[in-house]
Amino acid sequence: MNQLRFLFAVHCHQPVGNFGHVFDKAFDDCYEPFLNTIARHPAFKFALHFSGPLWEHMEKRRKECRALVKELAGRGQVELLGGGFYEPILCIIPEEDRIGQVRMMNRYIEENFGVTPKGAWLAERVWEPHLPKSLSRAGIEYTLLDEEHFHYAGVKNIHTSYATEDEGYPLRVFPIDKKLRYLIPFRPLGEIEAYFNDIRKRGGIAVLGDDGEKFGLWPGTKAWVYEEGWLENFLKFIEEKEVRTMTFSEYAAAEPPGGKVYLPPASYEEMMEWVLEPTDLKTFKKLKQESPAEARRFLRGGFFRDFFLKYPESNHLHKRMLLTSKKVRASGSESAATELYKAQGNDPFWHGVFGGLYLPHLREAAYHHLIEAEKRMPEETGWRMEDYDQDGRAEVLHFGDRFNLIVKPSFGGGIVEIDYKPLSRNLSDVLSRRPEAYHAAPEEGIGEGKSIHELRKELPEGAEDLLRYDWHPRYSSLDHFLHPATRLEDFRRVDFGEQGDFVNREYSHAVEGPSLQLERDGSVWTDGKRRSITVRKRITPGPGVITVEYEVENGERESISLVFAPEWNLFAFEGDLTVSGREAKLLEGKLSLQAPGADELWTFPLRTLSQSEEGYDIIHQGFCLLPVWRLHLSGKGRSQMAIVLAEKNVR
Amino acid sequence: MNQLRFLFAVHCHQPVGNFGHVFDKAFDDCYEPFLNTIARHPAFKFALHFSGPLWEHMEKRRKECRALVKELAGRGQVELLGGGFYEPILCIIPEEDRIGQVRMMNRYIEENFGVTPKGAWLAERVWEPHLPKSLSRAGIEYTLLDEEHFHYAGVKNIHTSYATEDEGYPLRVFPIDKKLRYLIPFRPLGEIEAYFNDIRKRGGIAVLGDDGEKFGLWPGTKAWVYEEGWLENFLKFIEEKEVRTMTFSEYAAAEPPGGKVYLPPASYEEMMEWVLEPTDLKTFKKLKQESPAEARRFLRGGFFRDFFLKYPESNHLHKRMLLTSKKVRASGSESAATELYKAQGNDPFWHGVFGGLYLPHLREAAYHHLIEAEKRMPEETGWRMEDYDQDGRAEVLHFGDRFNLIVKPSFGGGIVEIDYKPLSRNLSDVLSRRPEAYHAAPEEGIGEGKSIHELRKELPEGAEDLLRYDWHPRYSSLDHFLHPATRLEDFRRVDFGEQGDFVNREYSHAVEGPSLQLERDGSVWTDGKRRSITVRKRITPGPGVITVEYEVENGERESISLVFAPEWNLFAFEGDLTVSGREAKLLEGKLSLQAPGADELWTFPLRTLSQSEEGYDIIHQGFCLLPVWRLHLSGKGRSQMAIVLAEKNVR
Repeated sequence: MNQLRFLFAVHCHQPVGNFGHVFDKAFDDCYEPFLNTIARHPAFKFALHFSGPLWEHMEKRRKECRALVKELAGRGQVELLGGGFYEPILCIIPEEDRIGQVRMMNRYIEENFGVTPKGAWLAERVWEPHLPKSLSRAGIEYTLLDEEHFHYAGVKNIHTSYATEDEGYPLRVFPIDKKLRYLIPFRPLGEIEAYFNDIRKRGGIAVLGDDGEKFGLWPGTKAWVYEEGWLENFLKFIEEKEVRTMTFSEYAAAEPPGGKVYLPPASYEEMMEWVLEPTDLKTFKKLKQESPAEARRFLRGGFFRDFFLKYPESNHLHKRMLLTSKKVRASGSESAATELYKAQGNDPFWHGVFGGLYLPHLREAAYHHLIEAEKRMPEETGWRMEDYDQDGRAEVLHFGDRFNLIVKPSFGGGIVEIDYKPLSRNLSDVLSRRPEAYHAAPEEGIGEGKSIHELRKELPEGAEDLLRYDWHPRYSSLDHFLHPATRLEDFRRVDFGEQGDFVNREYSHAVEGPSLQLERDGSVWTDGKRRSITVRKRITPGPGVITVEYEVENGERESISLVFAPEWNLFAFEGDLTVSGREAKLLEGKLSLQAPGADELWTFPLRTLSQSEEGYDIIHQGFCLLPVWRLHLSGKGRSQMAIVLAEKNVR
Repeated sequence: MNQLRFLFAVHCHQPVGNFGHVFDKAFDDCYEPFLNTIARHPAFKFALHFSGPLWEHMEKRRKECRALVKELAGRGQVELLGGGFYEPILCIIPEEDRIGQVRMMNRYIEENFGVTPKGAWLAERVWEPHLPKSLSRAGIEYTLLDEEHFHYAGVKNIHTSYATEDEGYPLRVFPIDKKLRYLIPFRPLGEIEAYFNDIRKRGGIAVLGDDGEKFGLWPGTKAWVYEEGWLENFLKFIEEKEVRTMTFSEYAAAEPPGGKVYLPPASYEEMMEWVLEPTDLKTFKKLKQESPAEARRFLRGGFFRDFFLKYPESNHLHKRMLLTSKKVRASGSESAATELYKAQGNDPFWHGVFGGLYLPHLREAAYHHLIEAEKRMPEETGWRMEDYDQDGRAEVLHFGDRFNLIVKPSFGGGIVEIDYKPLSRNLSDVLSRRPEAYHAAPEEGIGEGKSIHELRKELPEGAEDLLRYDWHPRYSSLDHFLHPATRLEDFRRVDFGEQGDFVNREYSHAVEGPSLQLERDGSVWTDGKRRSITVRKRITPGPGVITVEYEVENGERESISLVFAPEWNLFAFEGDLTVSGREAKLLEGKLSLQAPGADELWTFPLRTLSQSEEGYDIIHQGFCLLPVWRLHLSGKGRSQMAIVLAEKNVR
């Protein structure tokens, strides 16, 4: 029988900002045993991708592993793959950054391993049709994509490679066999042999590109892959069964593409489902189930960029990143660019079966590096207007020496970002609770196959209580008028009467000297009547302090009783909030939020329920702080109050 | 009742290279009566797009029409829209050319009409998600897209505008209401009023952007729109019925976007069907019929770039254009760029209900301008290799002073392009016959609505005979071995026994001095046996002449009889071919193809059957020329022959 050619790429990645112990465990349980095992089978050729954070970690703490990679590369057993250094989704970052990140990786691999990558691992295989230009300009000749990309294009044979192009820039693309993704390393060798024989009979090549973490880090795989000997047996099987491993470059040099293709935007099948809203996901899954095989190419799931619409927090991070990127590109600062690139790592921009966006430490790292990038460039100060999030409405930005602010007049005059520069931390980096498909029907879950997906997932204790959804993103200075009977618990459970129309509606705005003035003539409904109410707020950044002065004015001739409660949401670790009177201290007391004269100061932790590889996570996202003023305004009367966010020892 | 806001854009276009009488008729029957009628209703505001070829034509021959446009623009009744000057599909041309074409139009409108376009008409509304960057960089703030684009993105409300972005470059997008496209100007005003009221009730805006040719040029519309008074009545109706017309810029300045959106690649619904192969189209239509409304967003049709896979002739024109574009961008020549831009006009790159690719004069114009662009840059001479069509296999190109050649070793060593430079004509610009959806079931047709689509289309006489499909593109020097009983008529009808494996298979190649050597060790099947046969050909361009010398070698010890027939296909008008003996004269005798010593020289016209606005067209695409040599080769014997393409008075 003819030799089956098997092209195998392993992709290893840990996000910027992930915990040190996660890195350590990944090397101990997975990357090192994987490479050590394969090194004992020098005839087994494969392609290997480590993302930048792993290369950097190896340099510091895993020198032996690094030396082994170098040895494997030196003897031609492994072909090292390039890609964006910090593993960004290439099509959501500016073209210059795309090329910068890919070239950074090329340079790193050239300098450290003496080889030049020809292929790129495409983060999450998120494809758009203009990528060949960026990749080709960065020196890349090929990449791996999912078979789903090819199905979308109506391609029938996935067991070969294809040529594509954009603007005449060529790129070779290899379809990753989805069935192999589910067989390796999860199934017995007999099943793999049977499938290999299928491919062999059709005269095709077998192509697999998948996460290295499946070899020891995913639940249950360490025992199965190493202790029970799956990998060793697999490597022996390859040697014995007339399977010829090749690197992708070897194959590409030997064989022209099997055809030409133009691929619409896509990623792997699961990703194109994760990006959908739960109700749309249901429609899509039903449609797929009920449609005949030949209709498959027309059933395309979501579009990766829709994560920005699904999660306002992802949108904000993305647009904030673009804002910094523009500055970095204008400045030409290399050290700023490196910080920016770190902030572009894909993980906190989306959410699927891994935590991603739901993990505060990943978001925190992204904002940290954006602020660090800005610290490496000439400092901007004062207020300016810019539609940073491109929704067609101007936001107001303030850059200062201790704090940066982004205010969104079109959304309640809310503060969408408060950066505390001494710690390079975005204090507003919290997450709202929203419906996820897996909330509704955990047993149906998302995804398939063994490993992660077959694990029994049980809702943790207290989860039920979190299946309350916020009706707005958790910005700060969002001006509620509560029904007087509302208690803290009602507010937390989103089970209260909102009497005003201020929280998510437009405020007029003007910069006056050091302050931003915001004003809305709105309404409050009490006792079944609509009352004209005006809310004014003046945001004034000072040295080590941000003051927000509020004024509530009764537009009616009759007097009125109101419960005014401007909501603030700030990031701080669990337990890192102490409340005394009308003051809440955060960040080990470094900062405090004060609401002098408020009748109450409600606070509660923000928690979300999300899925991860191992089950469900309840994650602490920060705190909600709600000063409450119970006002009685006479006809045409006004009341003033203030909230102060200040560093220790200021005020 | 509240005033309905109605935003109306009219797009007028005639392709580069279209006949003068078509331009004249378009102005007489359509553009001028349309503008004259609207000019009498100065309160009716609208947006107007004329493509570059129309502006240029107006400048020369329709000065009054031009003056009227200027008057309408001056009094603010019309907003002029920009776009790529020669109406290219923006995402299939290089980014620099995109920006160049859009800026050329902006400049033209500024210089001639004193206004700066803020909006762009997007040719055929072919969208890819990276276009906001190019458009924004070229100074464009908004464009119009089809509602289909928005359905693909899961958007429910098409009666507003949306904000989108790429890399942080913003673009406002207006969804074109498909129902209005089918109502205006085809239906009675009562139906339009009812639909306007629907939109009004929902609190939305009515947006229409459509071809100006519907107002007088499409079959039957001249009588309906002007003589029967539809347009005049419509304009009165707008005045009377509390409908407020606005320009797009006025609306955009007054209203922020109704939301944010990310749109996957799309065009109007019909286009996304035309690009599909007939069998896929059938599957897609069935799927759409059978799926529930909420599944609509997931049912995406084809991808515009797939026209390059569906029609090899479109692919060749596209890749040839990219080749020239690369040279033009490197040269910096402005006059070359203008010629290149003319060659980028969208029409000959695709085919739907209009002729497009099927129309030889449009393809001819595109090649003409590519060759003219090259004449404006430093001349390249001699052979070189380049994978110009990015299929992963090198082609061999020859640039000379009288002829250019592109040879495709991977496809039969065929000649895919022969440019005759004195006429700036691509002699190889013919079209093969291929299945079209409308061949199979004309009554089902494609598209819907009245106007074009409701017309009764009848197959013309002789059409049946054209429903024979070629199994390869009509390149030249494609080496057939025919069954000895094959007659010219059998060959024409693709009803013959191909005995060799040379026509579409790989030849080895090498440049030797002035010649390109091609060779294939292949097979011929005769009498049920496989025989080893080698074909060698040597292509030598000389002054005013191209010589192709062939050698056929018998690899077997036994003798063999063969019918060797290298196929050539050349463009010349109907009646412009005279054959005498073994010589065929073309282009009014300027060129001849000679096959000295051939046993026969078969020729026949190449004709295609395609659909157009008015029905079906049988189109003369050029000629097939087939010299036939009846060979008897002894064991290991060889035979030589030659074909010469020469200018008059050469040889």
